[in-house]
Amino acid sequence: MQDTSDSLVTVLAGGVGAARMLAGIVQVVPPANVTAIVNVGDDLELHGLRISPDLDTITYTLAGEINPDTGWGLKGESWQAMDSVRRYGGISWFGLGDRDLGTHLYRTQRFAEGATLTEITAEITDAWDLALRLLPVTDGRLRTMVTLAEGDDAGREVGFQEYFVQRQHGVPVSSVRFDGAEATAPGPDVIAALADADRVVLAPSNPIVSIDPVLAVPGVREALTARRADTVAVSPIVAGSALKGPADRLLTELGHDATVVGVARLYAPLADALVIDHADADLAGAVAAEGIRPIVAESIMKTPALAAALARTVLAG
Amino acid sequence: MQDTSDSLVTVLAGGVGAARMLAGIVQVVPPANVTAIVNVGDDLELHGLRISPDLDTITYTLAGEINPDTGWGLKGESWQAMDSVRRYGGISWFGLGDRDLGTHLYRTQRFAEGATLTEITAEITDAWDLALRLLPVTDGRLRTMVTLAEGDDAGREVGFQEYFVQRQHGVPVSSVRFDGAEATAPGPDVIAALADADRVVLAPSNPIVSIDPVLAVPGVREALTARRADTVAVSPIVAGSALKGPADRLLTELGHDATVVGVARLYAPLADALVIDHADADLAGAVAAEGIRPIVAESIMKTPALAAALARTVLAG
Repeated sequence: MQDTSDSLVTVLAGGVGAARMLAGIVQVVPPANVTAIVNVGDDLELHGLRISPDLDTITYTLAGEINPDTGWGLKGESWQAMDSVRRYGGISWFGLGDRDLGTHLYRTQRFAEGATLTEITAEITDAWDLALRLLPVTDGRLRTMVTLAEGDDAGREVGFQEYFVQRQHGVPVSSVRFDGAEATAPGPDVIAALADADRVVLAPSNPIVSIDPVLAVPGVREALTARRADTVAVSPIVAGSALKGPADRLLTELGHDATVVGVARLYAPLADALVIDHADADLAGAVAAEGIRPIVAESIMKTPALAAALARTVLAG
Repeated sequence: MQDTSDSLVTVLAGGVGAARMLAGIVQVVPPANVTAIVNVGDDLELHGLRISPDLDTITYTLAGEINPDTGWGLKGESWQAMDSVRRYGGISWFGLGDRDLGTHLYRTQRFAEGATLTEITAEITDAWDLALRLLPVTDGRLRTMVTLAEGDDAGREVGFQEYFVQRQHGVPVSSVRFDGAEATAPGPDVIAALADADRVVLAPSNPIVSIDPVLAVPGVREALTARRADTVAVSPIVAGSALKGPADRLLTELGHDATVVGVARLYAPLADALVIDHADADLAGAVAAEGIRPIVAESIMKTPALAAALARTVLAG
């Protein structure tokens, strides 16, 4: 196996799955060699605050401060502010812990002072002593919008978090759109991070609502495609199910197969190889038939050691 | 003494002193008869949040939830969000407790939804089951600006809270200005609350930075002057000192006397009577000479009973 311990690694990232993948990668290459290009389509404004859930989930996970029970938010959290909002009958479906609120207060103040999301994110990760680099895919405004397919809400388009959190992704979806994407540009260093990497990784994030919005920023898909030979994807689907979240249902609802074969079809233009779990070993041939090389491995990152092992597999390609 | 137990009472109000005065008044007349017209010149935007310190101090005091140690903020407060802001090197000189933050989150969200400060304030006071009515003097933007007089900052104009909290009102001041006042209009019901009251009260608030910004809203001074015969002021200066805050120094720095006589001179055009403390009984003649009737009373509201007694004095006029 080639020595990848000094590789430059760039990871296209959503939230929880990407955070675990990155936690594995920084065990096997120097963290300063690692760049994550992070989805901002999930971002929202609430209570006047600028909230970037995927950036924060990655930051808190890499800092060792993620709430292990929820996979989002901080350890040792308290909920006094939300209790107070609830007293007023305010919006309480999006839980903001008191510690977590400090991050949004800081981000919002810095925006008001004219800083960019890229700059603010660097300040936040510095404060947590993270050596890897988190790059929001764009400093522009990009919002993942979801059209609901059933019930009283059929045909109604809502913001991603209204679907994901408020409705607990329990409603079928008829389409997904990345509002504002065409007017955005990649953040500084995003294209260079793709061009300069020894290895590009598509994290086991939701292909529809985590990776696709990253690719919707003009120039990113082209820059990624140019690195296809060095790109490895990790399937977020194992044995026909998403490990977390609605990726399986979204794939089905939007006309894809909720299997590693469906993922292979989506990623074949972008990646040379697709890591699939041992549970899907019998589908390796069907994956290969889609034009992407299957790598069968233990892909469920239940422990830091398993995440590191998966990182080694991905980096070896 | 006339029966004032059913009077309609309207109080011009700043923060702490006004809150105590109002807590006394609602003991002696039905709270539903009481309207406070509240200063908003102290309001600020910080971390993207809309903060209205005087409205909140009154609300929390009347709800019995004010932090008794500080005179602002809530009881049982925690500081996790501010600790988190501090981690990032963010703005931490303006302390926002976690419970208190909920109020600002709610207010900011409601502004984003198009509600006015008057409407939002009614929602907040309803949530605390307050029966009295708090009216922001205006729904427009009015900001008390302070020009500093000494040191490196000489000649620099700062927002009120930068003077009051960040510099702990420890810097001499050369002038005070109410930015935006001339473009504002009184909030709904403000002028009617002055016209309809049986008794109008100038609370023992800072004449320069709490009462003056209320009077700077076009139409308020005229509406108040029209009620001069029914207006009683309470001196915030006792024995040459402010009970709280910088009223004494501000009066001196801006060329007034920091005595009940100086207060009398400011309020004589507005009020028929001025309550002064027993400590200033020897100045009653000098107060009368300014054209305002002195009422000598116990004016320091150390206990709820003393606040109620002062309220009875003020209402009897």
